[in-house]
Amino acid sequence: MTDHQRPIGIFDSGIGGLTVLKEIFSRLPNENTIYLGDTARVPYGNRSPETVTRYSFENTRFLSSKDVKIMVIACNTASSISLSAVRKSFSVPVVGVIEPGAKAAAAATKKKKIGVIGTEATVRSSSYARAIQAIDPDIDVFSVPCPLFVPLVEEGWTDGQITEMVADRYLADMRGKDIDTLVLGCTHYPLLKCVLSKVMGNGVTLIDSAIETALEINTILDSKGLMNIPGRPVRHEFYVTDSPQKFLSVGELFLGRSIENIEKIQLEMEV
Amino acid sequence: MTDHQRPIGIFDSGIGGLTVLKEIFSRLPNENTIYLGDTARVPYGNRSPETVTRYSFENTRFLSSKDVKIMVIACNTASSISLSAVRKSFSVPVVGVIEPGAKAAAAATKKKKIGVIGTEATVRSSSYARAIQAIDPDIDVFSVPCPLFVPLVEEGWTDGQITEMVADRYLADMRGKDIDTLVLGCTHYPLLKCVLSKVMGNGVTLIDSAIETALEINTILDSKGLMNIPGRPVRHEFYVTDSPQKFLSVGELFLGRSIENIEKIQLEMEV
Repeated sequence: MTDHQRPIGIFDSGIGGLTVLKEIFSRLPNENTIYLGDTARVPYGNRSPETVTRYSFENTRFLSSKDVKIMVIACNTASSISLSAVRKSFSVPVVGVIEPGAKAAAAATKKKKIGVIGTEATVRSSSYARAIQAIDPDIDVFSVPCPLFVPLVEEGWTDGQITEMVADRYLADMRGKDIDTLVLGCTHYPLLKCVLSKVMGNGVTLIDSAIETALEINTILDSKGLMNIPGRPVRHEFYVTDSPQKFLSVGELFLGRSIENIEKIQLEMEV
Repeated sequence: MTDHQRPIGIFDSGIGGLTVLKEIFSRLPNENTIYLGDTARVPYGNRSPETVTRYSFENTRFLSSKDVKIMVIACNTASSISLSAVRKSFSVPVVGVIEPGAKAAAAATKKKKIGVIGTEATVRSSSYARAIQAIDPDIDVFSVPCPLFVPLVEEGWTDGQITEMVADRYLADMRGKDIDTLVLGCTHYPLLKCVLSKVMGNGVTLIDSAIETALEINTILDSKGLMNIPGRPVRHEFYVTDSPQKFLSVGELFLGRSIENIEKIQLEMEV
């Protein structure tokens, strides 16, 4: 396999990262991809930094064994906590979802007031605030954890009164901060865009890290001369750590197309 | 250590099983206990049977290494799926939470109509329906999965309008079934008792498996002559697979007392 043909490797704690994969499919249609969803241990958002880091290394070691040319941590929690450690350990480029989202948010805000919503672990890490303020220290960043959003999306309740009331409760303080830009700091949240727009109002721009991350991958592959050559058949492989059944049914909704070449693997071994 | 002094071993996917431990403390105050919460891989309720079984065996092997005299699977999902397999593999008695809850529900119902609520995996396993109908085949059992109840409890939203609306939506069909008994088939659900009573009405008896399970352990230890002798100092140990911090703060609420002797362990090993 030539360097160009080597796949893009993506991992997420579960299905959420498929929103990033979908954007890769759309913007980089000639690329081979390998997606790993750690469905036996999802969610990561309420685990400790040590455990998230351990899981990230197990996931990236698996991707590395598949000879990927670039690795994507398509999970905000894992990106927040383990990106720099993972980057140091591999020779291929490693892209997280925080920096691309931060860059887009910093470019979008006019009032220099940005809101960030994410899991407990992502918000606690302050990774978005750091990344945004590294670009422009004058920007104020307000962060709120929204732990019930992931279970609501997983339950398929992406709209309706209950979800609006939950969003209303989480974002009540945020509405008082006069932000004009809101970072959807979790790969599940783009599915709540309608509810979030309604609760925050039209004056607030929603930033979806998935799109920005795909653009970043495009830039890196291009700059390193690693883009695949068009016209060859493209292969997309999927690996999960729990049974593929639920991943398939919910994942095809996320991805908007059918999933083939899926295999269950085990990352850890019993003592 | 004499046979009497050997501890009771309890595991759960996380903190929920502490509701069972609390009842053990209250009914069996002379017993030493070891509690294992698999907090690095919680929740189990939406995982496949194979993965839940693998986790159950890793947990019970750990308890077995601590020389426990009886093992308690204080998690409805793990009890539903793996109790019989675990029972075959160990020489000590193994108690789940399904049979005690089913027994109490069968005894409580006058109309012979019982409702069961639990995680997706518990409901899909039909373990409560089987256990109840093994006692009395004339009892009708209606089951509904309530996936958002665990995240709501973990978020601390155990009452209020949102939680009532969620319960109302999940239980709408159940209300039409004329049940007089509702099994709380998940160790988190006793914390929602007020909301569930309000939604189901006073005519419905709520069955809390935690109390019934503690009574079952009492009966087994008594019948085997394994009760500890009163008057000796008692030790309670806790093990978790993720950082103890969150377990301690939420766990002390569940347990209603302080938690000491807690240690983080790793059940699986990286490949």
